[in-house]
Amino acid sequence: MKRVRTQAGIVGAGPAGLMLGHLLHLHGIDSVILERRSEEYVIERVRAGVLEQGTVDLMRESGVGERLGREGLRHAGIYLSFGGVRRHIGFEQLTGGRSITVYGQNEVVKDLIAARRASGRVLEFEAEAVRISGVDSQPRVVYRKDGEECEVVCDFVAGCDGSHGVCRQAIPEECLRVYEREYPFAWLGILAKAAPSSGELVYSLHERGFALFSMRSPAVTRLYLQCAPDEDIEDWPDERLWGELTARLSTVDGWRPNRGDVMQKGITGMRSSVVEPMQHGRLFLAGDAAHIVPPTGAKGLNLAMADVRVLAGALENYYRTGRQELLNSYSDRCLRRVWQAQRFSWWMTTMLHRAPDGNAFDYRRQLAELEYVTSSRAAMTALAENYVGLPLE
Amino acid sequence: MKRVRTQAGIVGAGPAGLMLGHLLHLHGIDSVILERRSEEYVIERVRAGVLEQGTVDLMRESGVGERLGREGLRHAGIYLSFGGVRRHIGFEQLTGGRSITVYGQNEVVKDLIAARRASGRVLEFEAEAVRISGVDSQPRVVYRKDGEECEVVCDFVAGCDGSHGVCRQAIPEECLRVYEREYPFAWLGILAKAAPSSGELVYSLHERGFALFSMRSPAVTRLYLQCAPDEDIEDWPDERLWGELTARLSTVDGWRPNRGDVMQKGITGMRSSVVEPMQHGRLFLAGDAAHIVPPTGAKGLNLAMADVRVLAGALENYYRTGRQELLNSYSDRCLRRVWQAQRFSWWMTTMLHRAPDGNAFDYRRQLAELEYVTSSRAAMTALAENYVGLPLE
Repeated sequence: MKRVRTQAGIVGAGPAGLMLGHLLHLHGIDSVILERRSEEYVIERVRAGVLEQGTVDLMRESGVGERLGREGLRHAGIYLSFGGVRRHIGFEQLTGGRSITVYGQNEVVKDLIAARRASGRVLEFEAEAVRISGVDSQPRVVYRKDGEECEVVCDFVAGCDGSHGVCRQAIPEECLRVYEREYPFAWLGILAKAAPSSGELVYSLHERGFALFSMRSPAVTRLYLQCAPDEDIEDWPDERLWGELTARLSTVDGWRPNRGDVMQKGITGMRSSVVEPMQHGRLFLAGDAAHIVPPTGAKGLNLAMADVRVLAGALENYYRTGRQELLNSYSDRCLRRVWQAQRFSWWMTTMLHRAPDGNAFDYRRQLAELEYVTSSRAAMTALAENYVGLPLE
Repeated sequence: MKRVRTQAGIVGAGPAGLMLGHLLHLHGIDSVILERRSEEYVIERVRAGVLEQGTVDLMRESGVGERLGREGLRHAGIYLSFGGVRRHIGFEQLTGGRSITVYGQNEVVKDLIAARRASGRVLEFEAEAVRISGVDSQPRVVYRKDGEECEVVCDFVAGCDGSHGVCRQAIPEECLRVYEREYPFAWLGILAKAAPSSGELVYSLHERGFALFSMRSPAVTRLYLQCAPDEDIEDWPDERLWGELTARLSTVDGWRPNRGDVMQKGITGMRSSVVEPMQHGRLFLAGDAAHIVPPTGAKGLNLAMADVRVLAGALENYYRTGRQELLNSYSDRCLRRVWQAQRFSWWMTTMLHRAPDGNAFDYRRQLAELEYVTSSRAAMTALAENYVGLPLE
């Protein structure tokens, strides 16, 4: 069996795994990144697109922010729409200059893959990790590549392979506590060839349900609709989609999304989950492998980035000083942020969606919440400081 | 049939009806107040005890705040307790000097009854309104007193007789929209002969459920426990009560409520309701007749006071100028505040109680919410500005 020796075995080449490998490289720490999908798949998959200020700062400071700086769309705020009116929440003025940047997750991934290539360190696509062992003493990751089993022998394993990945499953069930909440609705998302008709995101609560107007580039609009979790995408021909989006997003001042060719559409369920702790021996979980948030707060990618920033710092400290304190506190430090993100994502989600068991009282209460959030400076600030990202620690 | 002519027929001598009669008197407008209960009952019944800044201001400015100023306990904030730790929210510094005052609803009622007596205007106890008619033209209130039917003929009727009163029922069902939400828990409240061991209220979320520490005087503590709505008070002997209160309220620094003789105990269900509009012809609903809030936000009494302040202003304007604009906008003006109070009360309630269908995720999310609310200045300010009362208009 082919065997490779490295310091950190990283499973998964999403933003978490790639950024971790990148940060470790900057500290002179070697790693091997294994990804079961192809490079093309990883680059093409459409995911999140809102970067917190801290994520943008991390990319810049670590030298992978050049294209982001050029192509990312910096947004000074968002709109909340209800009762036919759009109201603006200005992040910059409420948070002392912090903001968000719209830049697709796949663009982040592209930039990080380029940096990895430049570093000369190992990044293997179509390399599926199948077994993790020895996390209490000498960790090993067995993976399958071109039909053969190979092995990475390492000091630490970073599980950046999502909630269904092999790393999380490698932790004995009795050592993990899982917290979960399913939501009784889903998002139908589309990518449309249409110039965004608003420069900033529009989150809308309508009697017919939630809708979100967003964008990927000056020529591409990204739109979402609340739907039932078991809905069939076949029941949503373009005409119906646009009708519903227009109904839920249009405001009395005449604003509405531009229409265009639908390039992609899909339905995603919504759930919250957290596993505790995020560490088991020398195995560390990061990003989706440890927690899932509903997309409403745009926190998934940003949490992953915050995790690996903490992990990279702890590993750097370990290799430099031989001390394990930062590694041992990794889970606690990340989980504080994770629970805040869960809270915020839950709040945004329940404020903006119509629950199947909700009644007219609940809808009016939600409208009152939106009224409050768009009129009290304190409430606006609370939304803004969470949306741009709470301080890293 | 005995017949009295007046300008405003006021049904109900709770805080809403009495304050309305008082404010109208100050404007030189005559009224008759009818109350089905005895004076003793009205004065003795233990209800809310937290006055918003605006309610205190209203009592002072209208000349009934003398004893309140002397005996009311001004609180500069509240404590939120979770995970064994009490954290303080300082209202005064967060809201520019606004605060709350602890002063029993029955004390407010006593002061208003005294003012009514001094005014020489009519206040009838044990006078039960049984029929309201002519609200579109010439309103009449038929009531029963000492076994006889009497009639008040008036220009306007003010329904201050609670959610089960005759006034709300006098409005045809098809003219009212009712919004309601029941909560799957109740409060078990006790009054104890014990010196309050904290100078300010303590709201606690504990794994076993919500508890609230409050007070009525330097010698009387008022305590509440979350329980099931169908619980039997007989199942709560004092020993069990104190055990549960101590478990849910004690903090790691050694703080706990003082124990003492239980003078009174009772279980109250929790619900939210709003009827719209709050006006039908010449009949105006105020306070509990129009809306019920769960007690967690301490908003019930304060909403009633805000309603009658608006109504008194509108009636004064009508009698002085003959114009109806303010009367016509009464409902809309009150409802904005009502929905904000509903939103706040719902939020406080759901943040601090354990729902029977809640799971471990929900509990952790609630703890994260409390962590956030006690550490972010913006979030603390949002809580504070609602608790002391949003601006009157």
